[in-house]
Amino acid sequence: MNTQRYAIIGAGALGGLYGAMLARQGFEVHFLLHSDFDHVRAYGLKVDSIWGDMHLRDIHVHASTETMPPCGVSLIGLKTTQNHLLAELLPAPTRDGGVVLVLQNGLNVEADSAAIVGEDRVFGGCCFLCSNKVGPGHIRHIDFGKIVFGQYRGVSSTGSAAAGSSAGQTDAKMDSIGHQICDDLNAAGVPTEFSDNLALVRWRKLMWNIPFNSLSVILNASTKQIMDDPNASALAEAVIREVRAGAAACGVEIPEAVIEKTLENTRKMVPYDSSMRLDFLNKRAMEAEAILGNPLRAAKESGYEMSRVETLYHQLRYIDHTNS
Amino acid sequence: MNTQRYAIIGAGALGGLYGAMLARQGFEVHFLLHSDFDHVRAYGLKVDSIWGDMHLRDIHVHASTETMPPCGVSLIGLKTTQNHLLAELLPAPTRDGGVVLVLQNGLNVEADSAAIVGEDRVFGGCCFLCSNKVGPGHIRHIDFGKIVFGQYRGVSSTGSAAAGSSAGQTDAKMDSIGHQICDDLNAAGVPTEFSDNLALVRWRKLMWNIPFNSLSVILNASTKQIMDDPNASALAEAVIREVRAGAAACGVEIPEAVIEKTLENTRKMVPYDSSMRLDFLNKRAMEAEAILGNPLRAAKESGYEMSRVETLYHQLRYIDHTNS
Repeated sequence: MNTQRYAIIGAGALGGLYGAMLARQGFEVHFLLHSDFDHVRAYGLKVDSIWGDMHLRDIHVHASTETMPPCGVSLIGLKTTQNHLLAELLPAPTRDGGVVLVLQNGLNVEADSAAIVGEDRVFGGCCFLCSNKVGPGHIRHIDFGKIVFGQYRGVSSTGSAAAGSSAGQTDAKMDSIGHQICDDLNAAGVPTEFSDNLALVRWRKLMWNIPFNSLSVILNASTKQIMDDPNASALAEAVIREVRAGAAACGVEIPEAVIEKTLENTRKMVPYDSSMRLDFLNKRAMEAEAILGNPLRAAKESGYEMSRVETLYHQLRYIDHTNS
Repeated sequence: MNTQRYAIIGAGALGGLYGAMLARQGFEVHFLLHSDFDHVRAYGLKVDSIWGDMHLRDIHVHASTETMPPCGVSLIGLKTTQNHLLAELLPAPTRDGGVVLVLQNGLNVEADSAAIVGEDRVFGGCCFLCSNKVGPGHIRHIDFGKIVFGQYRGVSSTGSAAAGSSAGQTDAKMDSIGHQICDDLNAAGVPTEFSDNLALVRWRKLMWNIPFNSLSVILNASTKQIMDDPNASALAEAVIREVRAGAAACGVEIPEAVIEKTLENTRKMVPYDSSMRLDFLNKRAMEAEAILGNPLRAAKESGYEMSRVETLYHQLRYIDHTNS
């Protein structure tokens, strides 16, 4: 029997998929739903997935976290543009000391959760996932899905080594909880890795997310259109190099070979609309602060100016402003 | 009587206006026309100008420069994207040693003309002009119009001091011709200044042209929209600062106060579509090489990387490629 209890804060394309996988495996999962609450309560949650199709009817759905029991893990599946809601959403499920697993794009996106539950109770992670919500309570997971996560160690330690936890959970306790979460997810069929270097995981993902999310919106282009054009691909590469240098300034060393590997993988991808482009096309707010603004500021505080990234950041903020 | 003979290579919104002003003053002006040749031969050239409306019927029009007499001055009013035509267009009107006055946007745009007639017979200049072609043989000049020009001194001397002329016209001779052209234009009612520092004139104009031409296309925005938005205007300012630093690397010192002045003037402008935005909207090739590519390479050769400008350059080249 699986005793771990999970809260899924934001059961969209990401939270809905991972929550469904955990529920199917027998974990007690509590889904927070907003616009789809009535639909899912009536008809259940439908997930078409490369890991097997699911139609979960007997699940715990909530229109508010107030009705949730305390949970061991609260998984954040909201967009970072919704983080102002966390102060209202997190206290209930975390009230007995549960941890938070922030599966959001960007850098230092755990800070908003940490401000509520404390830095020493937060994990952050990156998902390598192609999944979309295609209708009310209906998710389509089309490719990938691996999670790599690690303990959050505070904004000031974006970079290198761990800052010691000041109070509450010890690193050893968090390490043990992290391994348990990792085991749970793997048992549920979600390929998951527990890393001891969250900053490295995040910056490495940013090497893709910053150039390709930004350029896909600014140039109104798919990944294939970017890679097929000599100027757009040269720019993508220059941005990737700059992000790697920004990471290095923050004490995160990424091997140079990752640059070419990132480009090569993108060349091989099927034409893909980045999450930011989907937000843009659907006139939703874009995660420019999480994906570009935070890394920009972190690098600047470490003395390195990512001027290409800053250019893209300002452009995105302008586009975001005129798009909503 | 005015004895100076002018060839107008490209009688569009710019060449047509200045040529008409010279012709009205009594100079012998030969207009090269392409698509409007038949119309202008039949109905004359119509210019609605803040300097007075003109309808010139009795003018010299040519469908090819082959039919032109040798001219003292050949004024280049083509877009730089048409410079591949110069090898065919320039030899006839310059055959008796006449000079070339390159009134094109960008940096080192004189090089194409210099390659044909020799570096020592070329002037370059910037026009501060709002003028459009509104119909066949019909130009509307709505604001400004001043010309500042100077002797071209070769690509290698983009920056500071003059490179000595190796052959042909001496600097003193060119200086005298330059002053004559300046007097001619002023007599014709075109406010004109002869500068001894063309590189300074060009880089200073680039401080406006690079940010506002580029951003107006990439962000699909008017100058007013750019200046009214905190992110777009912050980016414009960062680019202006970078261009100033690029100029300095090339030995061209521009006072820091010009930055704020450029921003302030743009804030005060009526909402304005830059020439590059008009080209983009009309699906014409944009002058990305002249306005961004050449300054970028000049600064890089002097050891300074304008990474923001390079970002804009790659974006424009991609947009240009998908727009035509």
